Amino acid sequence: MRETIAELEAFAHRLADASGPHILSHFRTQIDVAHKDGRWDFDPVTEADKGAERIMRTLIAGTYPDHGIEGEEYGFTPPQPGNGRWVLDPVDGTRAFIIGMPQWGTLIAFNDGTKPVVGMLDQPFLKERFVGADGHAYVQTPSGRTGLRTRPCASLKEAVLSTTHPTAYFSPAESEAFQRISREARLTRYGGDCYAYALLAMGFIDVIIESALNAWDIQALIPIITNAGGIITNFEGGDVQHGGRCIACGDARLHAQLLPMLAGVTA
Amino acid sequence: MRETIAELEAFAHRLADASGPHILSHFRTQIDVAHKDGRWDFDPVTEADKGAERIMRTLIAGTYPDHGIEGEEYGFTPPQPGNGRWVLDPVDGTRAFIIGMPQWGTLIAFNDGTKPVVGMLDQPFLKERFVGADGHAYVQTPSGRTGLRTRPCASLKEAVLSTTHPTAYFSPAESEAFQRISREARLTRYGGDCYAYALLAMGFIDVIIESALNAWDIQALIPIITNAGGIITNFEGGDVQHGGRCIACGDARLHAQLLPMLAGVTA
Repeated sequence: MRETIAELEAFAHRLADASGPHILSHFRTQIDVAHKDGRWDFDPVTEADKGAERIMRTLIAGTYPDHGIEGEEYGFTPPQPGNGRWVLDPVDGTRAFIIGMPQWGTLIAFNDGTKPVVGMLDQPFLKERFVGADGHAYVQTPSGRTGLRTRPCASLKEAVLSTTHPTAYFSPAESEAFQRISREARLTRYGGDCYAYALLAMGFIDVIIESALNAWDIQALIPIITNAGGIITNFEGGDVQHGGRCIACGDARLHAQLLPMLAGVTA
Repeated sequence: MRETIAELEAFAHRLADASGPHILSHFRTQIDVAHKDGRWDFDPVTEADKGAERIMRTLIAGTYPDHGIEGEEYGFTPPQPGNGRWVLDPVDGTRAFIIGMPQWGTLIAFNDGTKPVVGMLDQPFLKERFVGADGHAYVQTPSGRTGLRTRPCASLKEAVLSTTHPTAYFSPAESEAFQRISREARLTRYGGDCYAYALLAMGFIDVIIESALNAWDIQALIPIITNAGGIITNFEGGDVQHGGRCIACGDARLHAQLLPMLAGVTA
């Protein structure tokens, strides 16, 4: 990898600066929603999503022509040997987006070939940008930057638990496992989308459990969570960068308590 | 009623102007959460909630000493004969509030003794204020005022459906009825709290179904929904101003389709 992490982090800000206004111009308009083939009944693709990915791809190709790009909308462009790739989800949380809720975000990661080393969640409607890289994590707003830090939470009975939907993304066994965990939690909230991970990094949510994730849904969130002091893995406690099933916790003790409750759950 | 609706609407803005900064000063801080007795496992009362209601009560008593006040935190102060009452929920959506999500709101209504005639949902974090009264409805932001209008939606299969939680506020029979409706809807979203009603008034959500509401949870929302072109009733199609079970629709045809699916459901 030729570039420093600091350089790549600065470039991620340029990508968000460029994509945000395009996405916002489509937010809360009565947009045409196209349906994609796939597993879900309702997986809308908006002009916001496609246009923003084109904007980011153009900027990457112009600045780092040797870098790869893995995007939700336009697939995988492999890197030249010895280079990393950008992993992009221009509008993660499209269902939140189309009903006007602000829990969607633009997810931008740089993966050095082994793991995501820069992660960003940009929320241009709220003017909040969550960043994690190289030992630091912060939220940037028009007022400046504030460090992100997860909060201690030693056990499930004290925990705030979140997932986006109780059944839509889970297998029946996963949904049952989630409900078993939910019954012991202090509070369960639905409807968080990627923004829930930002709240976990800020110390307001203790655990997020999700399934059926793609790589571009999760790569940007990994450096934010880990650099804020949290832990994020698959249900087996391993690397979740390729997507699938995810558990993110602000406190490693809570994570250790919950992994056995997810072990062996059928996907 | 001695005052004009326009005067009362202007005073509602003063109440929101006064309460908002106090509430915001407690948002996204690691607050102590007190537990109230009651039906729910987790019904937090925050300093934000109590302090904001005291601020609004002081302002009302100083300006309209003959008006009544019905508030979530400090109970009912009856009006002098021939006067109406203010109905206040300083932080509706306390669970959203304590996890840092922006779906909470300050609900302010003026009830003339027969019904709420002015309704306001103030969201100071988003700098959005939704207002309905006397044939008009608008959202006020730092950029100005924009009219609110629900969208047409003739049938459930085209509808975006919302409620705050799939089970926490519903009886078992209500939860089953909700799931029957959800299976036929185009899309179901959880976690909306009072903000979902604002999105319904803006034309992005088609139907909200909720239960276990108090008067102060719903009175402010009635003039917003009805003046934006929507319809909001109890499960029997009657007046919902006293709380209980609520169905709000942007299109009266959808409301007429759904009422039979809620008839006779055990509370």
